[in-house]
Amino acid sequence: VKIGEVMRSIAVGEVIESRLQGYEPGQLVQGMFGWQDYCATGPGGLFPVRRLPRGASIEASMSVLGLTGLTAYFGLLEVGAAKAGETVVVSGAAGATGSIAGQIARIKGCHAIGIAGGDEKCRYLTGDLGFCAAIDYKAENVAARLRQLCPQGIDVFFDNVGGRILDAAILNLAHKGRVVICGGIASYNEVAGSDGPRNYMNLVVRRARMEGFVVTDYFDRADRAIAELAAWVARGEVRYRVDVQHGLENAPAAVGRLFAGDNRGKQLLKIACTASAESDALLGRPGV
Amino acid sequence: VKIGEVMRSIAVGEVIESRLQGYEPGQLVQGMFGWQDYCATGPGGLFPVRRLPRGASIEASMSVLGLTGLTAYFGLLEVGAAKAGETVVVSGAAGATGSIAGQIARIKGCHAIGIAGGDEKCRYLTGDLGFCAAIDYKAENVAARLRQLCPQGIDVFFDNVGGRILDAAILNLAHKGRVVICGGIASYNEVAGSDGPRNYMNLVVRRARMEGFVVTDYFDRADRAIAELAAWVARGEVRYRVDVQHGLENAPAAVGRLFAGDNRGKQLLKIACTASAESDALLGRPGV
Repeated sequence: VKIGEVMRSIAVGEVIESRLQGYEPGQLVQGMFGWQDYCATGPGGLFPVRRLPRGASIEASMSVLGLTGLTAYFGLLEVGAAKAGETVVVSGAAGATGSIAGQIARIKGCHAIGIAGGDEKCRYLTGDLGFCAAIDYKAENVAARLRQLCPQGIDVFFDNVGGRILDAAILNLAHKGRVVICGGIASYNEVAGSDGPRNYMNLVVRRARMEGFVVTDYFDRADRAIAELAAWVARGEVRYRVDVQHGLENAPAAVGRLFAGDNRGKQLLKIACTASAESDALLGRPGV
Repeated sequence: VKIGEVMRSIAVGEVIESRLQGYEPGQLVQGMFGWQDYCATGPGGLFPVRRLPRGASIEASMSVLGLTGLTAYFGLLEVGAAKAGETVVVSGAAGATGSIAGQIARIKGCHAIGIAGGDEKCRYLTGDLGFCAAIDYKAENVAARLRQLCPQGIDVFFDNVGGRILDAAILNLAHKGRVVICGGIASYNEVAGSDGPRNYMNLVVRRARMEGFVVTDYFDRADRAIAELAAWVARGEVRYRVDVQHGLENAPAAVGRLFAGDNRGKQLLKIACTASAESDALLGRPGV
């Protein structure tokens, strides 16, 4: 995003005026509307405007049934190819994507272990979300705990973090292990670039692979995935939470919460527009 | 290998005495015989004793039809899944494994580009081995040259080197590119460990993967691969060379040649034993 451009963001908004059939005023739609009160947009593009999934709340559409839920779903099951009985480790596990990835792993019969920062988040993982175990990276030696918790090694490491946590996971991969690179928040702000995973040669020893992906590549199959996620949510098997901040002027601070680890669930921002009482919009974090 | 143990090495030797049916004195066999004049061994193990491929010379059995040839074959075609029309880049391309990988890529209809150190090796790649282009990492900016030579990006990067060359390749991957981690000689001697590939997050942007492998996993299919390699060699489509040093006392220095880049082709060591004139043995480099 260039200086002066509208900051990119997925958002839910209300149609005020439309020349596109099937999109009438009052309809709630989701799209790449950006950090702004109003957005003029058209069909097509990488994030085509679409109606919210049937029966889904704005909050769910922006999290578990939106980009982060789909990222967890396709990243774990397609890229990571997690199978029942395998050990799945998720970093950033209390976050919007990681929490869903871990719960899908649990539902699929995997041994799900989460890495998060702080005791509160770790208790949330094991107490509320059904992770088998949680590692507090702020207080524990991640590599040592992984060795202890995964005596057979890690079959799938779903990484949102990078840095030394990724290193610790690579060190503890199982034979034919898979590292799914979903994000790397540890190095997003390092202008000079991070050091990269020092232990990558362990990929040879373990005959393992490390793979990146972008969820938009799977959009043609999103409807089926959303239906499956929605069913899990309806049955209480997948839980999610959103962290709603308010006011467009607070958008930068809301993003900052992600980097400080202050958010509890999917970071959203609600902005009140003047068009109607129903036109409140929820903005998610920028980009993918 | 622990201090005081026999240094591991694949070798060809002559059977002097045998209680194993089919292995008579005088027979040439290949196995993990180590740096020593004589070796007592049995059947089984990771590198089971086997006869040389039919009609193969000792030199070929220790290189193009041996571990390095098989590593190139399975690494490129199975792990890298190189397909006709794709761009394949090989590091350590003048080496025993890289030179075969590049030639197989060429035979399979790929655009084969080699990275090697020095003008002589680069001329060998394009002049003798039929690579499309060569990059001299000692004299050229590898990332810039890759960008120039691979405008569509690298589909398969077959890496024997690691370090900044791996970084440059990851930076230039094509959509759905594959990095085959075969070796990482740049960091083998770094006690503190290398920095790791700084650009690994480009795996996400490119939806790419990085995968390690060990050739022994493919031994059950070695015979068919050796037959295919032997046919290419017989037709002159695959060339190989060996660099034979002499004398067991020169074994450490022979290994050092690999790290200095002094070897020209597969580094072998010939040791003269006293049993018979035919019992000269050729020792390859230790381990896999």
